[in-house]
Amino acid sequence: MNPLLSALAGDAEIEALLSDDAQLTSMLAVEAALAEASADCGWIDEDAADAIRSAIATFVPDRPGLAAGMAQDGVVVPALVRQLRADVAEPYRAALHKGATSQDVIDTALMLQLAKAFDIYETRLTALLDRLEALAVAAGSRPLMAHTRMQVALPTTWNAKIGSWNEPLQRYLRALAGMRRTLLVVQLGGPVGDRGSFGAHGDAIAAGMARRLDLGIAGPWQATRDPIVALGNLLALISGSLGKLGADIALLAQNEVGTVRLEGAGGSSAMAHKANPVNAEVLVALARHNAGLSGILGQSIVHEYERSGAAWTLEWLTLPPMLVTTGASLRLADKLLGQLNISN
Amino acid sequence: MNPLLSALAGDAEIEALLSDDAQLTSMLAVEAALAEASADCGWIDEDAADAIRSAIATFVPDRPGLAAGMAQDGVVVPALVRQLRADVAEPYRAALHKGATSQDVIDTALMLQLAKAFDIYETRLTALLDRLEALAVAAGSRPLMAHTRMQVALPTTWNAKIGSWNEPLQRYLRALAGMRRTLLVVQLGGPVGDRGSFGAHGDAIAAGMARRLDLGIAGPWQATRDPIVALGNLLALISGSLGKLGADIALLAQNEVGTVRLEGAGGSSAMAHKANPVNAEVLVALARHNAGLSGILGQSIVHEYERSGAAWTLEWLTLPPMLVTTGASLRLADKLLGQLNISN
Amino acid sequence: MNPLLSALAGDAEIEALLSDDAQLTSMLAVEAALAEASADCGWIDEDAADAIRSAIATFVPDRPGLAAGMAQDGVVVPALVRQLRADVAEPYRAALHKGATSQDVIDTALMLQLAKAFDIYETRLTALLDRLEALAVAAGSRPLMAHTRMQVALPTTWNAKIGSWNEPLQRYLRALAGMRRTLLVVQLGGPVGDRGSFGAHGDAIAAGMARRLDLGIAGPWQATRDPIVALGNLLALISGSLGKLGADIALLAQNEVGTVRLEGAGGSSAMAHKANPVNAEVLVALARHNAGLSGILGQSIVHEYERSGAAWTLEWLTLPPMLVTTGASLRLADKLLGQLNISN
Amino acid sequence: MNPLLSALAGDAEIEALLSDDAQLTSMLAVEAALAEASADCGWIDEDAADAIRSAIATFVPDRPGLAAGMAQDGVVVPALVRQLRADVAEPYRAALHKGATSQDVIDTALMLQLAKAFDIYETRLTALLDRLEALAVAAGSRPLMAHTRMQVALPTTWNAKIGSWNEPLQRYLRALAGMRRTLLVVQLGGPVGDRGSFGAHGDAIAAGMARRLDLGIAGPWQATRDPIVALGNLLALISGSLGKLGADIALLAQNEVGTVRLEGAGGSSAMAHKANPVNAEVLVALARHNAGLSGILGQSIVHEYERSGAAWTLEWLTLPPMLVTTGASLRLADKLLGQLNISN
Repeated sequence: MNPLLSALAGDAEIEALLSDDAQLTSMLAVEAALAEASADCGWIDEDAADAIRSAIATFVPDRPGLAAGMAQDGVVVPALVRQLRADVAEPYRAALHKGATSQDVIDTALMLQLAKAFDIYETRLTALLDRLEALAVAAGSRPLMAHTRMQVALPTTWNAKIGSWNEPLQRYLRALAGMRRTLLVVQLGGPVGDRGSFGAHGDAIAAGMARRLDLGIAGPWQATRDPIVALGNLLALISGSLGKLGADIALLAQNEVGTVRLEGAGGSSAMAHKANPVNAEVLVALARHNAGLSGILGQSIVHEYERSGAAWTLEWLTLPPMLVTTGASLRLADKLLGQLNISN
Repeated sequence: MNPLLSALAGDAEIEALLSDDAQLTSMLAVEAALAEASADCGWIDEDAADAIRSAIATFVPDRPGLAAGMAQDGVVVPALVRQLRADVAEPYRAALHKGATSQDVIDTALMLQLAKAFDIYETRLTALLDRLEALAVAAGSRPLMAHTRMQVALPTTWNAKIGSWNEPLQRYLRALAGMRRTLLVVQLGGPVGDRGSFGAHGDAIAAGMARRLDLGIAGPWQATRDPIVALGNLLALISGSLGKLGADIALLAQNEVGTVRLEGAGGSSAMAHKANPVNAEVLVALARHNAGLSGILGQSIVHEYERSGAAWTLEWLTLPPMLVTTGASLRLADKLLGQLNISN
Repeated sequence: MNPLLSALAGDAEIEALLSDDAQLTSMLAVEAALAEASADCGWIDEDAADAIRSAIATFVPDRPGLAAGMAQDGVVVPALVRQLRADVAEPYRAALHKGATSQDVIDTALMLQLAKAFDIYETRLTALLDRLEALAVAAGSRPLMAHTRMQVALPTTWNAKIGSWNEPLQRYLRALAGMRRTLLVVQLGGPVGDRGSFGAHGDAIAAGMARRLDLGIAGPWQATRDPIVALGNLLALISGSLGKLGADIALLAQNEVGTVRLEGAGGSSAMAHKANPVNAEVLVALARHNAGLSGILGQSIVHEYERSGAAWTLEWLTLPPMLVTTGASLRLADKLLGQLNISN
Repeated sequence: MNPLLSALAGDAEIEALLSDDAQLTSMLAVEAALAEASADCGWIDEDAADAIRSAIATFVPDRPGLAAGMAQDGVVVPALVRQLRADVAEPYRAALHKGATSQDVIDTALMLQLAKAFDIYETRLTALLDRLEALAVAAGSRPLMAHTRMQVALPTTWNAKIGSWNEPLQRYLRALAGMRRTLLVVQLGGPVGDRGSFGAHGDAIAAGMARRLDLGIAGPWQATRDPIVALGNLLALISGSLGKLGADIALLAQNEVGTVRLEGAGGSSAMAHKANPVNAEVLVALARHNAGLSGILGQSIVHEYERSGAAWTLEWLTLPPMLVTTGASLRLADKLLGQLNISN
């Protein structure tokens, strides 16, 4: 996303977590953990693990080379391993990445990045819930005219409205906590995903990696992508419920309705009197965008054979914008609630 | 769906569960439970509940009248209540539907229909897992050439392949069980969704309805549709993983690959030698259809104000085909596995 | 779609055009035209064409047999040809469907069905444009308060609003006319889509069929589905622009805005004072549904090899609801404009 | 898109055309053309136009200020005009942007950017068609085994296959040429989109801008977005047909099929023997991504009132990735065809 659009509808923090640099750092952490766990069970020598750790500690990537490798191989890991291996002292070069495949590194690195994204989402969801609780305390018992089917219905209270905003968010906090266990797990399969390339050591190495990287343990999952798609679905739900909040506020802030007023709303280049509910509108846009993206990500579950380049690339195209969009939704919902003044 | 297409890609059992008749039956059950629970706490008289129960027992709908009401009001309940009320003896007519709104009836009725769909899904998922376990016992240790990125990779075993098929299904069984608690709950809100129209009796009536209808208890949720969208997401995951199974089998059954053979595969009007992997192909189509539909259903979470006719109608257009598609996926996966012969 | 939902958000006329009966009638017309065109150029005997025409004239399908064939072969044509062939007197049986493949029949039959749908769409679009012109004549110069970003902007006139509604519809009328030439063409390819199965007669037979069926002439297109997807895109645009009209009217009809009033608006089971903008809301739902469906249909363009059962089935699941949805949008827009009263 | 992913599945040329810098340049060109056209008809003084042109020529934006304005106002133009106005000598400041609104500048600037994207697409489509023609000359008459429904069918020739690849591309070239007339038009509406803010000069100014900017003339279209959505649909068709080409080649390049071989195919970090059809796979991923995005963009046609911040922001989130994805599809199809060796 371009910086200008990102200022409106993106999320600098999440974008940073998903940058090439962040991915590279995560992949190196995975290679280090793989080496260490491999040494623990004798799959490689301790000296080899030391040499790999040293190489990683001082590794400076040749970025054009990585980009060229990405374009050539469809995944950056072959080029990365080639570059990194050149920095490992012989006779330890063969120990680097031993038994592993590109997908082990990419997918496990993604889990490390997602863990940090989860931290941000949880922090922001909690802050939103705090804001909503404060709003309920301040204004929950005040009357609110309910509207159904775009028509005035009957009076209710702000508590009912606030409840419709915060209950889904509480569910999402629980869902994220659950996904920490089910999704944030190590991927280790080797070339065809059965750990056969690690001799008898595959499970032990996976467990060692998981412990070092603070991830869960699981069997290889390179071709069963439902947990990834399920994450995308949750992200779309988060943006979706915040889109409902945005739609509600945009409607309540209409001049003719006037139930709420937004402090510091957006200006116009042509009409000085306008107070545009920009954050509310963008929340709606983000909701629709993320919902649609979840329908695309869902296509990637048809992951043919033991590894699908097509389905996997589709994931890469779709999941990152979903993560950013979700971050942006949370960021803007907070901003919008900060602007909210109940008029009546 | 037309009967011919349904024979290929639909599901007669699920379609029956979602028919107008089935919905009508469910709505009448909800009105009865509402009356009984209302009588329990004194919101209406016991005699009124009896009169309503009697009217429901013998009610014969005027179907053109219901259709006309649906077109007029955007929801069938006003016409249904009018028709049913005419069958209730005075002075009990006002007790019918007292305090309730259309959405209470439609949404709670949907839960009754979904409960039956869940039964079918669970039965079929369990049968599929049994089939896959039998396949693993019979052939799990046999060699299988793995393919990654559409190229021959290295040998693995059928156990690895079968694992990639059954693990997601196990997760979906657990997810369905979880949704029985979180999704299959009574909806009772009254006109604006705050139970204010039931005086002090709203919670008691909701609890009584839940007990009678074997549903969970929850606060009103008419404008918080994330559990509905989450159901759609799960349905798309189910179809999606079965689409992966279909894609795998269509590839393995290629003449040039010949790893599996399909007994009783499809014929051609022009080429007598063809043995088309029809069920495998349809599984892929169903996966892509359901994934896309989940992206549409996700749009409906932007449910403005206390009740959105636009978002709710969008749900009605989208969720039923998803339920049918999921049933069809499960049905065809069973058929396909029944055709599967491992050749090598 | 269930009859009740269809009364609200479907279209009986379009649904009838897409029924199994209508498809069967179209397929028989295609087989007849194929036989006649084949006889014209000597590919089959005139007597054979007569015998086929006779069989078709009196053909009564065994519907369960067709459904079973559909489920078995993934396409109904093999079973249909088998049944029909039994009605053809020998020695002419082999002349039926000679050289053709299932897809020739299905796709050409679809074109016949689409031609009738286009008639309906054009009639309705023209009627809508007439309504809008009448509205412009009656009220175009009256003032209208414009709203931008959900806030009161500055006064404009109804002419500007009406222009934003009718200009897209004029474009769609032109696009439909264009598609009559580019989309509504005969499909004749034979088993692998190169007309090789018709000896030297393929082009002549295709031209003869096109003339008899009032379709355009084109080379075989069984694996190049972009015109089908382009049709879906146009359908979504039509529903989309009418969804904008619906959204505008729902907003203008808000009690607090009161710019328009809807005669005979929808009632509520709980709130007698409500006048719900049901048709406007459903237009928004149809727009969102059709837009999403176009994103699914777009997946079917990845039509692998010379014929993809997966991609083709996905088309069958997606295009018919789009055709119905578009019909419903046009139907409801007309109804909604008929309800419209400009208040100010 | 991150640089690494862009190296695989992005397009540096299109990304540059859509950058903040490119947009800024285009917006300044629009303001200059507006000033000049306004001076031509006396809406502002010639001296004012000179002063504005001078200010634009030397304008150095305060980028953080633009980003802050974007976040505040939901559109960058108010901040941009503020900054630029400070560089215009008095008494000419009021002449800058006189009568115009943000959307006039953004939408017209987009057209300038799209015109350049069209140049690239047309050049690449033409080059692809040349490649395919050369392939037809070299190998068109060679036999090819056709496959239908993922099974061996009957022999055909490469000409049939090549025809299924190039016919859609010829249609897209024509469609792009058509869109140059219908889509690439000036937008000038003023605050509420009726040109009322330009007195009697609106049409003349729009015509003058169009001539200067080499765009077509049209009435204001700020709330009728169907041409934008139609562009997205065409982009998805382009990627879609190239995805079909990719799917075909990935299948034909399977080791077991071996009909084609890819020179310089992708390598694996674990299996030295692999020759992965990376470009073919990415084409499939891009097709699915763009198809899904078109279903999201379609949501933005429900553009409520005279300007919808929600729908417009959704466009900004969706159209740019579609433009890049389309560029990437064209780039990779060329690369893939360059790798293609027909083996049989």
